[in-house]
Amino acid sequence: MGTLMSQAFVSEILGTAMLILLGAGVVANVILPGTKGFGGGWLLINFGWGLAVFSGVYVAFKSGAHLNPAVTIGLLTADQPFYSVTGPEGVVTATLEPTIGNTFWYILAQMIGAFLGAVVAWLAYKKHFDQEADAGTKLAVFSTGPALRSYAWNFVTEVIATFVLVFVILAFGPTPSGLGPLAVAFLVVGIGASLGGPTGYAINPARDLGPRIAHAILPIPGKGGGDWSYAWVPVLGPIVGGVLAGLLATAYIL
Amino acid sequence: MGTLMSQAFVSEILGTAMLILLGAGVVANVILPGTKGFGGGWLLINFGWGLAVFSGVYVAFKSGAHLNPAVTIGLLTADQPFYSVTGPEGVVTATLEPTIGNTFWYILAQMIGAFLGAVVAWLAYKKHFDQEADAGTKLAVFSTGPALRSYAWNFVTEVIATFVLVFVILAFGPTPSGLGPLAVAFLVVGIGASLGGPTGYAINPARDLGPRIAHAILPIPGKGGGDWSYAWVPVLGPIVGGVLAGLLATAYIL
Amino acid sequence: MGTLMSQAFVSEILGTAMLILLGAGVVANVILPGTKGFGGGWLLINFGWGLAVFSGVYVAFKSGAHLNPAVTIGLLTADQPFYSVTGPEGVVTATLEPTIGNTFWYILAQMIGAFLGAVVAWLAYKKHFDQEADAGTKLAVFSTGPALRSYAWNFVTEVIATFVLVFVILAFGPTPSGLGPLAVAFLVVGIGASLGGPTGYAINPARDLGPRIAHAILPIPGKGGGDWSYAWVPVLGPIVGGVLAGLLATAYIL
Amino acid sequence: MGTLMSQAFVSEILGTAMLILLGAGVVANVILPGTKGFGGGWLLINFGWGLAVFSGVYVAFKSGAHLNPAVTIGLLTADQPFYSVTGPEGVVTATLEPTIGNTFWYILAQMIGAFLGAVVAWLAYKKHFDQEADAGTKLAVFSTGPALRSYAWNFVTEVIATFVLVFVILAFGPTPSGLGPLAVAFLVVGIGASLGGPTGYAINPARDLGPRIAHAILPIPGKGGGDWSYAWVPVLGPIVGGVLAGLLATAYIL
Repeated sequence: MGTLMSQAFVSEILGTAMLILLGAGVVANVILPGTKGFGGGWLLINFGWGLAVFSGVYVAFKSGAHLNPAVTIGLLTADQPFYSVTGPEGVVTATLEPTIGNTFWYILAQMIGAFLGAVVAWLAYKKHFDQEADAGTKLAVFSTGPALRSYAWNFVTEVIATFVLVFVILAFGPTPSGLGPLAVAFLVVGIGASLGGPTGYAINPARDLGPRIAHAILPIPGKGGGDWSYAWVPVLGPIVGGVLAGLLATAYIL
Repeated sequence: MGTLMSQAFVSEILGTAMLILLGAGVVANVILPGTKGFGGGWLLINFGWGLAVFSGVYVAFKSGAHLNPAVTIGLLTADQPFYSVTGPEGVVTATLEPTIGNTFWYILAQMIGAFLGAVVAWLAYKKHFDQEADAGTKLAVFSTGPALRSYAWNFVTEVIATFVLVFVILAFGPTPSGLGPLAVAFLVVGIGASLGGPTGYAINPARDLGPRIAHAILPIPGKGGGDWSYAWVPVLGPIVGGVLAGLLATAYIL
Repeated sequence: MGTLMSQAFVSEILGTAMLILLGAGVVANVILPGTKGFGGGWLLINFGWGLAVFSGVYVAFKSGAHLNPAVTIGLLTADQPFYSVTGPEGVVTATLEPTIGNTFWYILAQMIGAFLGAVVAWLAYKKHFDQEADAGTKLAVFSTGPALRSYAWNFVTEVIATFVLVFVILAFGPTPSGLGPLAVAFLVVGIGASLGGPTGYAINPARDLGPRIAHAILPIPGKGGGDWSYAWVPVLGPIVGGVLAGLLATAYIL
Repeated sequence: MGTLMSQAFVSEILGTAMLILLGAGVVANVILPGTKGFGGGWLLINFGWGLAVFSGVYVAFKSGAHLNPAVTIGLLTADQPFYSVTGPEGVVTATLEPTIGNTFWYILAQMIGAFLGAVVAWLAYKKHFDQEADAGTKLAVFSTGPALRSYAWNFVTEVIATFVLVFVILAFGPTPSGLGPLAVAFLVVGIGASLGGPTGYAINPARDLGPRIAHAILPIPGKGGGDWSYAWVPVLGPIVGGVLAGLLATAYIL
């Protein structure tokens, strides 16, 4: 791992940790009994996750802020650089190329970051986790679950929603704006509002699997199982969605 | 159809499909029983549609992102180019002129895109459509309907709301900002919040008719009729609103 | 009235009409029975009004988009130009000076625009006004009223809220951004959320008085009186707030 | 105190007063009986506080808009200038250095501003405070309190939430955008949505202590005690969070 990839590795850990801290946080706030935001509604969850991405992107400025294996794999599919360092006059002076090796490091960092973020979110809401509550509710702070269980159709929903995420991110380039990280934040608010209904929009394998592992390890009183039979859906669905977005973007956008 | 119009044709299909996927999606999320966003309220719907426009505009960067026959017809009325290609120093190097022919292709692409977007939204919410639910609710995911039925006054509301949409879009030019596609997204959030109450703000013939056709064709269990007697209102109302906006903009803005 | 002031006169009429159309519209949507947004809550109203300002500012690009006598009087107090025309290289080529005469024309245009906007909002919600409903509810679409009636303290609230509006607008200058009209839109969302509780945040004499006159004239079935004994509060309160903001801005900002 | 520090002193007073006026205002609107926004929900509170920061930052343009001792101490820890004056070509012409002395003046100004802002918010909602209501509700307009009381874990939550605030603010630098003060506004909306559940997110010692002192002094009918045994948590927690953010930022960002 070269210097640039080392920095990107730390960057993806910190950024994904920030993403999951705020993302798991807003779910905890809305569904754990006794919190100030209890019952705050879907739009609150959508803004919480969107602004979690917003904060995570700012933190991960040394890696291009993927924060999501589906984005990394989408860029790999589209053969786009993972991260470029630009010099004073906008000239690219160094690049992290879309290789299998770099993909491995990015995803590993995202998984570590997602795990750490979930742990810190649990610390922030420690007393509310300790209160009596439904085991399923506790799991739902960490990982997604379907509204109506159907592995095939839940998979389809995750493919579609992640396709939208990665494809629109790849379409940001030709339309410059001054929005910075707010563009992807609002994109995620919109995906949550529109396509989050059936599965809770994982749209990110690390977002789902990292916290699910944290849930398995952490000493949470009264927790139940991790619903591992569902765990492949929010991992494979987003990967397929990211690959499809990378393919279509190669033909249409890039 | 020249190369530029061919690209624009695909662009309008993809962008309008993205618009309707996310737009129909947020309605499905709020009104279909069992979804995570069920009962999420009007502001959630407004943000969902606004950010649907946001995503659609990014996708349709090769056509000027009309995504709406009322916008196309408004530009035709105001004799404004549909799309301009600018070279490296901001010089316009090619233009899609506001002709009847191009108008036809734009609207056809928008109709196809709206149909496709509705089909994908149906796939994303497949299990919720399969659940028992009111036939009217199922139609409402696809097409608008009036709160109080009155063809004349529903028509008036659609004219006013679409006038606002097209007129303000034409007024974006003289006030530069760094908002990019967020400006029209927030405009649509605002129109929904303020003028969506009586008719559900079609403000776009393709947005209403394309999904209504999809509803008629798709194998949705327990679906009812398509309320075709109302279908002209969200087509003609927006067209008249777009023409009026084009006329007033010619006098005042352009 | 010179050419520039004539254009500004029309601009203020159109922009204020757009403001009140969308502002009265969102109130109608939330409080008139049977609308799609009925009972949509305070945040929906706040976004509706904020984005009403957003749209109105875009429309009123030929007058500096005051849209509010309190803003005009605040600028007069602070001796700031009402509107400047800038040439190709950012050089100011013409100015509407802060004179008593121009103030008169600006406020007259704002009153006319507010009246017209209220009429169009009534047309958009015509069938819902025709439905049986409380007379006070109907008035509330047009004009503000206090939550707890106390002329003195309601006046204080309007002074404070309008001071915030005008003072922060005058403070926009030293902190450039790419937000354009979104800055004042979010400011108005914030004022509504935070200071709208006691009086419904008129913060604009034209916003309140113009629609109150429209309510008096329009043939609305079952309408009651116009609560004229309160009408001076949302006129004088905002004017005093605007003057105070202009004075403090002269000392601190300008 | 030199000229620059004197200006910054006034700037921090005015900006923090604006912050607390709008921040305490939105809480009053949502929890005091009889207001227009009563029961408006957590997202309304989040937007109210976020846009309170938005307005406060615009007002405090002569001091770098810290508005928060945790930010000031974070900058001191990271050895970053508190405020820089830039000349016409972007050259820094004067600087307020991160010294203990300047830190004292900044925090004193923030405390005075927070006190004044709380007084004005009380004036804006005077009649609602005079209405019969729970003493705890009245205190909650001014100061934060825990959902579940546990000094240790409440402290942890405030440390985490303030760390996010200060660390992400320090990470704004490397990712330029045209968002201006909207970036920190949305950051605060996000922190409130995601990490405000257990303690009500003071994340600012002045935000909590200044209004708590105002509550103790103001003649509010039926007010109870100031819950002073809790008062150290929202002071020390944010300070520790700010220091940690400054330390990690020194290693990772700066």
